[in-house]
Amino acid sequence: MRRLLFMAPARRWAEYREVLPGAIARAGIKAEVSPEVPDAEVDYIVYGPGDGGPTDFARFPNLRAVFSLWAGVETVVGNESLTVPLTRMVDPGLREGMVEYVTGHVLRHHLGMDAHIVNPDRDWDNTAPPLARHRPVTVLGLGELGGACAGALATLGFPVSGWSRSPKTLPGVTCHSGEDGLDAALSDAEIVVLLLPHTPETENTMDAKRFAQLALGAVLLNPGRGALVDDEALLEALDSGQLGHATLDTFREEPLPGDHPFWAHPKVTVTPHIASETRPDTASEVVAENLRRAEAGEPLLHLVDRKLGY
Amino acid sequence: MRRLLFMAPARRWAEYREVLPGAIARAGIKAEVSPEVPDAEVDYIVYGPGDGGPTDFARFPNLRAVFSLWAGVETVVGNESLTVPLTRMVDPGLREGMVEYVTGHVLRHHLGMDAHIVNPDRDWDNTAPPLARHRPVTVLGLGELGGACAGALATLGFPVSGWSRSPKTLPGVTCHSGEDGLDAALSDAEIVVLLLPHTPETENTMDAKRFAQLALGAVLLNPGRGALVDDEALLEALDSGQLGHATLDTFREEPLPGDHPFWAHPKVTVTPHIASETRPDTASEVVAENLRRAEAGEPLLHLVDRKLGY
Repeated sequence: MRRLLFMAPARRWAEYREVLPGAIARAGIKAEVSPEVPDAEVDYIVYGPGDGGPTDFARFPNLRAVFSLWAGVETVVGNESLTVPLTRMVDPGLREGMVEYVTGHVLRHHLGMDAHIVNPDRDWDNTAPPLARHRPVTVLGLGELGGACAGALATLGFPVSGWSRSPKTLPGVTCHSGEDGLDAALSDAEIVVLLLPHTPETENTMDAKRFAQLALGAVLLNPGRGALVDDEALLEALDSGQLGHATLDTFREEPLPGDHPFWAHPKVTVTPHIASETRPDTASEVVAENLRRAEAGEPLLHLVDRKLGY
Repeated sequence: MRRLLFMAPARRWAEYREVLPGAIARAGIKAEVSPEVPDAEVDYIVYGPGDGGPTDFARFPNLRAVFSLWAGVETVVGNESLTVPLTRMVDPGLREGMVEYVTGHVLRHHLGMDAHIVNPDRDWDNTAPPLARHRPVTVLGLGELGGACAGALATLGFPVSGWSRSPKTLPGVTCHSGEDGLDAALSDAEIVVLLLPHTPETENTMDAKRFAQLALGAVLLNPGRGALVDDEALLEALDSGQLGHATLDTFREEPLPGDHPFWAHPKVTVTPHIASETRPDTASEVVAENLRRAEAGEPLLHLVDRKLGY
């Protein structure tokens, strides 16, 4: 009998206790999962970041692997006390939710919806927006989430450029990579979507120089990570008119403090980190499959490369 | 040399004069198009409804066919003085624009965007919306536009039901038809999209009985025709809470009068008939192809069935 420590905030346990034990049983593994397991008896950890400081993983002498419930692992990947394999969550539900959020907000900005949702002057201006085929969109990050979003936008007719650290190929997407590739990907983009992982290299990817490369009045969508954006440069680009709007779902501090300038800015929409959430039912299947693989000595799915940070 | 009368408001001519003559020349037809042609010399009419009353087509003794610039032909189909073939516009640009509008507004309501776009209390409620796969959407009308929208929504993962007068089959869409089929299509729908043609049979399709069949708090999207909806019943359903919101792009009177209750209603979004507009460049190709067919004695594209009304 293996023992899994569920190390995530209590409200997560309330969701996962309903579905994770069943998924483990269906995978054919005899194991017990609980938020309370004596340190010495912990074989695996199901991990979601909490409010406390870094975890001391050295206190679990028999730990075999850590399964993150989240796609982003920046809170744990640099933890030196963690010496066993770490896996990211790649959850079909999370991917679907992200595609829905990104497609919806890209279309919102493309169609200029806000002017109709709030229209106190009852203005009837029936100039139709341009077609998607005339609206260049750029997606930074072409991993599991970014690649799916780029593909969905291309299917809707947008000319989509994508950028990733290493070269990729995606049907219907003009793919760039490397530093020069980033210039080309951002040049004249009208809507930019950030879905890069947060690593030291991606911190402040969108700074004053990058904002200046976009089309005048471009829109920024950040459902990725708050630290990808230089917040001061963003506010300046909005105020100068270089950027037309920013819709932000991730922030350096969450919840976003009530006095943060993003809340009050007329050109910023704050969404409360809802672009995508791991779904307990589909995520439990992924955890159970990795548990089965670990027990069988098979390669784990979505293993984090500790050097790359994702 | 054939002569085409461009019978549509002046601002349309300003657009089409740039692209329609070229499209006709590329189709290999020697013809001249102008908003002013002596009645007896008119061979064809390119038609868009204006502000005046019904046209007396009997004054054009040599008229061979009328090519509508619009998909909806209700302003002309019942005109008894029109005895020559009438074609509807089926424009790839119009179809694309409609898919973008419908997909965008369905996602807007699905994701609950409005609560983030206008959030004066800076409320941070990070409950993620359900996935599209758990949000049933129904599209009434499965023609050129409705079929394309239903398909795009199904591709995004929504469970899509569709309804049309005559039976249809669309991949990924549960298709219903006939009166009983309408009950089944509307039952428990959470978002309903109206893309039926306006005919005597479709007038007031969405009335109190139909609203009551939807899921509690359902959303209505009407980019079709204003007359498809019983306006009084709609306001009652919104006020009772049976409907959660209505986003309307078409109205019985357009522009929507400034004192119409739709403008002031907190659960109504008015968009000014922009869901889809015929695009002069792509539409000109369709007119030119039908002119070529008419001259060659070939069957016309998108011929209106005068009995059905579309």
